[in-house]
Amino acid sequence: MPQIDAQRLLADLRELRRFGACENGVVRPALSDADIESRRWLARRYEDAGLKATLDGVANVLGRSRNPGPALLIGSHSDTQPRGGWLDGALGVIYGLEIVRACAQDRDTAGLAIDAVSWQDEEGNFLSCLGSRSWCGTLDPAAEAAAVGRDGTKLADALRNAGLDDVARLTIEDGRYCGYLEAHVEQGAYLEDAAEQIGVVTAIVGIRGITIRFYGQQNHAGTTTMARRKDAATAMFEIAHRINQEFPKIANERTVWTIGQARIEPGASSIVPGYAELALQFRDQDEALLDRFEDIVAELVAEVDGRGRIAAQAERSRIPIRPCAMQDGLQDHIARAAEQIAPGRWRRMPSAAGHDPMVIHEKLPCAMLFIPSIGGISHDFAEDSHDADIVAGCQVLADAAASILRENQT
Amino acid sequence: MPQIDAQRLLADLRELRRFGACENGVVRPALSDADIESRRWLARRYEDAGLKATLDGVANVLGRSRNPGPALLIGSHSDTQPRGGWLDGALGVIYGLEIVRACAQDRDTAGLAIDAVSWQDEEGNFLSCLGSRSWCGTLDPAAEAAAVGRDGTKLADALRNAGLDDVARLTIEDGRYCGYLEAHVEQGAYLEDAAEQIGVVTAIVGIRGITIRFYGQQNHAGTTTMARRKDAATAMFEIAHRINQEFPKIANERTVWTIGQARIEPGASSIVPGYAELALQFRDQDEALLDRFEDIVAELVAEVDGRGRIAAQAERSRIPIRPCAMQDGLQDHIARAAEQIAPGRWRRMPSAAGHDPMVIHEKLPCAMLFIPSIGGISHDFAEDSHDADIVAGCQVLADAAASILRENQT
Repeated sequence: MPQIDAQRLLADLRELRRFGACENGVVRPALSDADIESRRWLARRYEDAGLKATLDGVANVLGRSRNPGPALLIGSHSDTQPRGGWLDGALGVIYGLEIVRACAQDRDTAGLAIDAVSWQDEEGNFLSCLGSRSWCGTLDPAAEAAAVGRDGTKLADALRNAGLDDVARLTIEDGRYCGYLEAHVEQGAYLEDAAEQIGVVTAIVGIRGITIRFYGQQNHAGTTTMARRKDAATAMFEIAHRINQEFPKIANERTVWTIGQARIEPGASSIVPGYAELALQFRDQDEALLDRFEDIVAELVAEVDGRGRIAAQAERSRIPIRPCAMQDGLQDHIARAAEQIAPGRWRRMPSAAGHDPMVIHEKLPCAMLFIPSIGGISHDFAEDSHDADIVAGCQVLADAAASILRENQT
Repeated sequence: MPQIDAQRLLADLRELRRFGACENGVVRPALSDADIESRRWLARRYEDAGLKATLDGVANVLGRSRNPGPALLIGSHSDTQPRGGWLDGALGVIYGLEIVRACAQDRDTAGLAIDAVSWQDEEGNFLSCLGSRSWCGTLDPAAEAAAVGRDGTKLADALRNAGLDDVARLTIEDGRYCGYLEAHVEQGAYLEDAAEQIGVVTAIVGIRGITIRFYGQQNHAGTTTMARRKDAATAMFEIAHRINQEFPKIANERTVWTIGQARIEPGASSIVPGYAELALQFRDQDEALLDRFEDIVAELVAEVDGRGRIAAQAERSRIPIRPCAMQDGLQDHIARAAEQIAPGRWRRMPSAAGHDPMVIHEKLPCAMLFIPSIGGISHDFAEDSHDADIVAGCQVLADAAASILRENQT
């Protein structure tokens, strides 16, 4: 089996971290200068590893093996949240690079075709999973045309600024791949709490987002009697609190929901709010449960709106992400490798976070591997994982990759 | 009695409106360029009316009569909310100017001493009632040193930018004044609903503000289980909704409360909020009731904090404004004049909004007059009043002023 080089793996992870480094974290949103520089660096690393590297028209970086197929694609994304952790997607990107190198150095695996990839904008600075959607041919032109970055830049302008507007976009080569593998930090604390080292992902949960808007009438907070008011914020607080009371009644153990954004206009102490809105997001493996949550929101909103004082409207704020299963066969290869490297210290588990395989699984069999997150912290500068877990995870994925390709060659 | 000149009054109101005009409203916050220009314009108008005008070190504009006392001070403030109505304080400022002119033109009143004033920053861009506090000698040096405008500029820097840092500040002349009169739009709809033209203000309600802060732990909105979360926004929504449920149980008919500001950090759909805060304001004539509201807030906050998941703290966000009564004798002068001009179409009523007399009444007897607000709308570009009401209000205040001064001269 291929032997990964722990020092080389960790050194490259730390070198990638330098692009956009900030305190213990990384600020490297899609198409930022740091992002583009890191992708050009990665393309050179792919070439050094013997791959044919391409930075495509949405800044996906694909390293294509010069060996004949069937091929396995391994990677993740190297863009980050606005204040992101240093591992997150970077971990899986460097795993792909290291597995290519380790396999090339082992006589038994040197002939295997392993492509490595870093997808663009998994984190949705412009459009969530932009790169993998583009590669899979499922990028909606209207959504692309409407995509605007957090700093207000249009996607088309950002691509032009990066010199990519006339660069071809790669798409999946029919028949080349037997699957796609991605590693990631867990971002939760199940593995750490159980003192386990490897998670074999069974499925990625579905995600839905709803924006609820409240239209009242702005007025003076002293002279407008309570009876006359049309206070948009009062309605927002009621709906928000009642969502938090109703959802637990039907939630599963792993269901999560979050009201992460709320806005009041004009937002002054002495003015009755004329407008308010909140953003609700919820996730579960069970699509029927997600439907029931939407029904609850619709009922609460209709009740408040029906009183005739505040107009309330609920609308989906994102394209729903359907729950998607990882392929059983690929899962089993990772599970067997995990049992070799970390006997009894691995588990099968769903991913509560979204990842590019949500998009790619429509085209290719997918599987994912998790390593533990310290304290379960992620999407935060404090995100981290132990070196030993980083190394073990890469070896498990390398073993699984070799085993999958051997099976497909026979 | 003095006869006010309706056209001159309306023309000057419209000329003042031009400083910072925006749509139907005015953007003229304290110490903005538009504010300073308008105050220099007002000082020239005061001089033209025969007064000795001074722009003082906090940009109060005082026009001092050259007649011997006792004097009456008449005015209001000409600074506005960030998106303010065109009348608001401007009405009472131009009333003062017009009453000075009308009295000077009438043989019977030409010898009366009427000073006119525009106070600075009643609306609290830097510090609520800055100008009247300065004039009364009750401006807290620590509060002044800490004062920062909505745009982040320190008060001291804004005064320096306006060229006022070395300008003397006027303070009340002991023994000169027998009282202070201020006119204002009602900002509510009591007068309009009753088809009345004049409000004689009996008292100004007390105002208290409380900021409630919630400290949780920021985390990933997919991978952090509900059981592990410390979601600051969830606690905020609960407290806000429960305040809106508890306060009505003990409120009076005219009690008002408002949650006009709420903030969630970091404010992203996919991140469990680590911090949240809201600003609550409440007003009533009854100080014991205000105390009971504070107790309710303290109990709710203690309950949420006591669960040990989210740290919650309540703190007064402003210096409490105590309810204050207008002087009976001055009220009666206005009431008699109102009955002459608008027989049976006036009422005595409290002010639910704060005004400079809250500060000045500690030094001088005060009275206020209201005219109707169209639709009860204020602190909004749509604020307006009918010309006939503007003119009638000014005549009532002029008659009351003459009558007050005559009584004090005998």
